[in-house]
Amino acid sequence: MKTPDLDLIASVLEGLEETIIYKLLDRAQFRVNRRAYTPGESDFTGEERFSLFDVRLRYQEELDAKFGRFMVPEERPFNTGLPHSARRVHAPENCLRIDEYDSVNLTGEITQAYLDVLPLLCEDGDDFQYGSSTEHDVIAVQAISRRIHFGAMYVAESKYRSNSTAYDRAVVAGDTAELERMLTRPEVEERIYERIVSKVEYLQARINRTVRRVVDPLIVRDMYRNSIIPLTKRGEILYLLSRRSDRPRG
Amino acid sequence: MKTPDLDLIASVLEGLEETIIYKLLDRAQFRVNRRAYTPGESDFTGEERFSLFDVRLRYQEELDAKFGRFMVPEERPFNTGLPHSARRVHAPENCLRIDEYDSVNLTGEITQAYLDVLPLLCEDGDDFQYGSSTEHDVIAVQAISRRIHFGAMYVAESKYRSNSTAYDRAVVAGDTAELERMLTRPEVEERIYERIVSKVEYLQARINRTVRRVVDPLIVRDMYRNSIIPLTKRGEILYLLSRRSDRPRG
Repeated sequence: MKTPDLDLIASVLEGLEETIIYKLLDRAQFRVNRRAYTPGESDFTGEERFSLFDVRLRYQEELDAKFGRFMVPEERPFNTGLPHSARRVHAPENCLRIDEYDSVNLTGEITQAYLDVLPLLCEDGDDFQYGSSTEHDVIAVQAISRRIHFGAMYVAESKYRSNSTAYDRAVVAGDTAELERMLTRPEVEERIYERIVSKVEYLQARINRTVRRVVDPLIVRDMYRNSIIPLTKRGEILYLLSRRSDRPRG
Repeated sequence: MKTPDLDLIASVLEGLEETIIYKLLDRAQFRVNRRAYTPGESDFTGEERFSLFDVRLRYQEELDAKFGRFMVPEERPFNTGLPHSARRVHAPENCLRIDEYDSVNLTGEITQAYLDVLPLLCEDGDDFQYGSSTEHDVIAVQAISRRIHFGAMYVAESKYRSNSTAYDRAVVAGDTAELERMLTRPEVEERIYERIVSKVEYLQARINRTVRRVVDPLIVRDMYRNSIIPLTKRGEILYLLSRRSDRPRG
């Protein structure tokens, strides 16, 4: 995105909602499978001390790194020490003003929020489908992460440009409470929550309930309310605090 | 699946339709990007003579193999020479009667059918998003492959059990035309095609067209009609020809 158009950014974020919902509904077809998240229970040769989820996420990110995923600003890695890209990647021009994309990296919080929601999303207990469960987990946390980091970076840049003097003042003062206040628009957030409920209902309205588990739309809404939106805002603040100044500060 | 219940098998196949449709709609958000499918153009260090699609699919399958994906009957690999599983996998009991799952492996035909449909699915030209495009491709061909191989194996086993004498006769005679005739139920196929059109329409009915490209439902229906259903039937025949006999033949 070459210029930070808030309407366009909001549309992209809206488009990512379907993606996140699909992934969560897919994961909900398996049981919670707690063993797959227990360190020391991976049953994976050479990686015994980790959980299967951690191993799968790291292996997938090592692959993704070779293909250049993390050269895209909103694709932030959950792991460190990943290999360099083996591809020449065409990185489109963007309007962001931070030198190090990983100044905005909330992947630790995203993993925790996702693992917390699993017992609500899935039927309790074990179906032993640990491989499929963690394969879906990785796709889901990557989709959630993309939404949060895309929102954090581009929304912050857009809002900054619309009111740079006031943002500069709060940044210089290190006043994160004021930044959060300036970034918050409760009526926009409420519209998102209502839309999420409506989408989850719609996407499940015609499914065959003999083969597909149905998810309570409020679980997805609450994940947005308690994690995705607050983490996006925290990312916006991190972005603003790391943003290259357009002019001398002070 | 411990006993091959045709209604249950049909429900699973129906559930996989949403998955396949979601994946195709996601891929359609990128341009055709022909360069990603051209051998010699991968721009990937050490893998220059392949296409980026081929490299991505092979790397993903090497990872998946380590996590035990191909120990599941319906997950057939597109590549050979893959590593062994590094996990102890809980393979649930199944009702299939073939010794070598890869006797039914139509992945070459699946890749070709998928690549043929891309220019219909996507806007022509290049957006240079080769990494994202091929990431989506791999997820899509794996979903299509799962549907075809699951259908081939379990539908064939179920139909065999309902009329084993007649199937045995055709198998012993090597009469594949007769097997195809016995396996074909045109009215079931027509119902699937109508359902596909209806699902693609429904899933796109409320999307925001300023940010999401809309796909003509007939493209997905024709992919089912020209590839997915015929390949499933070809897989059913392969399954029956490889099936362990329950009794002495002749």
